[in-house]
Amino acid sequence: MSLGEFELIERYFSRPVSRAALGVGDDCALLAPRPGMQLAVSSDLLVEGRHFLSTVAPDRLGHKALAVNLSDLAACGAEPLAFTLSLSLPRADPEWLEGFAAGLFALADAHGCELVGGDTTRGPLVLNLTVFGEVPAGQALLRSGARAGDDLYVSGTLGDARLALEVFRGTLTVPSGDFERVRTAMERPTPRVALGQALRGIATGAVDLSDGLVGDLGHVLRRSGVGATLWADALPRSAALRALPLRWQHLCTLAGGDDYELLFSAPAAQRAAVQDAAARCGVGVTRIGQIDAEPGLRCVDAEGQALDLQVRAFDHFHSS
Amino acid sequence: MSLGEFELIERYFSRPVSRAALGVGDDCALLAPRPGMQLAVSSDLLVEGRHFLSTVAPDRLGHKALAVNLSDLAACGAEPLAFTLSLSLPRADPEWLEGFAAGLFALADAHGCELVGGDTTRGPLVLNLTVFGEVPAGQALLRSGARAGDDLYVSGTLGDARLALEVFRGTLTVPSGDFERVRTAMERPTPRVALGQALRGIATGAVDLSDGLVGDLGHVLRRSGVGATLWADALPRSAALRALPLRWQHLCTLAGGDDYELLFSAPAAQRAAVQDAAARCGVGVTRIGQIDAEPGLRCVDAEGQALDLQVRAFDHFHSS
Repeated sequence: MSLGEFELIERYFSRPVSRAALGVGDDCALLAPRPGMQLAVSSDLLVEGRHFLSTVAPDRLGHKALAVNLSDLAACGAEPLAFTLSLSLPRADPEWLEGFAAGLFALADAHGCELVGGDTTRGPLVLNLTVFGEVPAGQALLRSGARAGDDLYVSGTLGDARLALEVFRGTLTVPSGDFERVRTAMERPTPRVALGQALRGIATGAVDLSDGLVGDLGHVLRRSGVGATLWADALPRSAALRALPLRWQHLCTLAGGDDYELLFSAPAAQRAAVQDAAARCGVGVTRIGQIDAEPGLRCVDAEGQALDLQVRAFDHFHSS
Repeated sequence: MSLGEFELIERYFSRPVSRAALGVGDDCALLAPRPGMQLAVSSDLLVEGRHFLSTVAPDRLGHKALAVNLSDLAACGAEPLAFTLSLSLPRADPEWLEGFAAGLFALADAHGCELVGGDTTRGPLVLNLTVFGEVPAGQALLRSGARAGDDLYVSGTLGDARLALEVFRGTLTVPSGDFERVRTAMERPTPRVALGQALRGIATGAVDLSDGLVGDLGHVLRRSGVGATLWADALPRSAALRALPLRWQHLCTLAGGDDYELLFSAPAAQRAAVQDAAARCGVGVTRIGQIDAEPGLRCVDAEGQALDLQVRAFDHFHSS
């Protein structure tokens, strides 16, 4: 079966819009942000074999492609509004497209995020999504807002996606029930969209964890002009990860990548407000350290002993 | 020399913004459209070997990647504001990146269009740009606005990009001076940004020509619920193209692809206004037919004889 580009768009990717002024099918989509709102924009490129394995089910890939972008909106405290999808495909396979669209639109609908445009072409399997969200002017959570003395928090648990990757790579083995759970963490991350919005006015700085805690925290510290102390043994992690040697626990939590949790700072006076916001959103948040005036990142264990940070950010140009 | 992702972004793609509220370097960029403005959004994916030849100079590729997106804004009558760039590269080659960035930013600066974000990764050579423009609410030029009786116009000349492609393919030969000119048309198209804005309130419908005149006109006719008559011998074309057999002239103008000219409709009462707008923008526009109430596309030669339209839109899933 061969589908042309326009038939393909029509069949799988043309849906009416209600929030955008104009959706798929013209030269441009038209968005009309509400008065007083700024438009938050983020774009992520996903390449087969680098950002996802060729074994991933198409519905999970559809979910993940949008989830990683919604996670960027969450880190800014923005409400999702719309997205564009660019899709390069080796072939137009209806079964694959149906699965991909199902996973993509299930997550989009859950967040009221409308597909408004994009592009399709034949080529290597590559996806690019650009997402748009609204945030009240001046209220976006930024990487530059962390202040010395602030508490440091993370949502959910860390390291399961990396653990799953290591199992796929054959460097680790875990019981099969655990494998399904960590594989789901890797393939079907949950963007913390409600939490990000709930933290507006409470958190001072935020970032979403895509490249690993140490690397992403580094962006916050650099842009905020501060340092931090991390409590390695306080990092929240699943039972599956806790069953592994401590060395692996540290690697997966500190340098895991693909966590899509929120890392944020907030003044100590906001501790109750942080926990209230998290409870309202049904997401766990854990205090994992503090922001220091002294530059640099220090990592200590439960006894206060310094850990050697021989871990680094996941870098798509350095790692293999 | 090996460059990491963050160093690469920093060196070539981090520039201060003045119109956007927040540029490259956070989870999201922040745009603040002016009151009463809608945000026009378009996204284009370019894959090596399909949308550009591997022989293209990097500065020309940088130019073209943005030009094809600005052309979409032009077709809506929008003023360019900002763009995101996603770049998948086989390797981080400083010489290539420098050339690419030079071509990209020269065109961006000429239109006051700021880079506000994006993504870079290692992978096959693939580019995705998403552009943002502003248009007064309700004034965007749409594909759905053509009305029976309207004149049909096109800007510039058609077919040179296709002619150049055929020379690269070895199916045609042209004198070397001509080759440089048509090659430049293919590799360095000029988006009709000023003309698109000047046509607001004058044109009834518009589309930019990326897939070929017949195919792109088809989108307008379908969405406007009308038909059209095209005057094949009135189609504006270069001296290089006019030197070829008429069969090639028809193929290249009617189904060329990669023209990035504006095709638009306007009431007969607006003929003087159309020519005034074009003259103010320094762009030629040519009347090439008319919109009919009767559905379908008819193509006639200078004697009024019907031409068989054995040409079709360039389709990235059907053509090789």
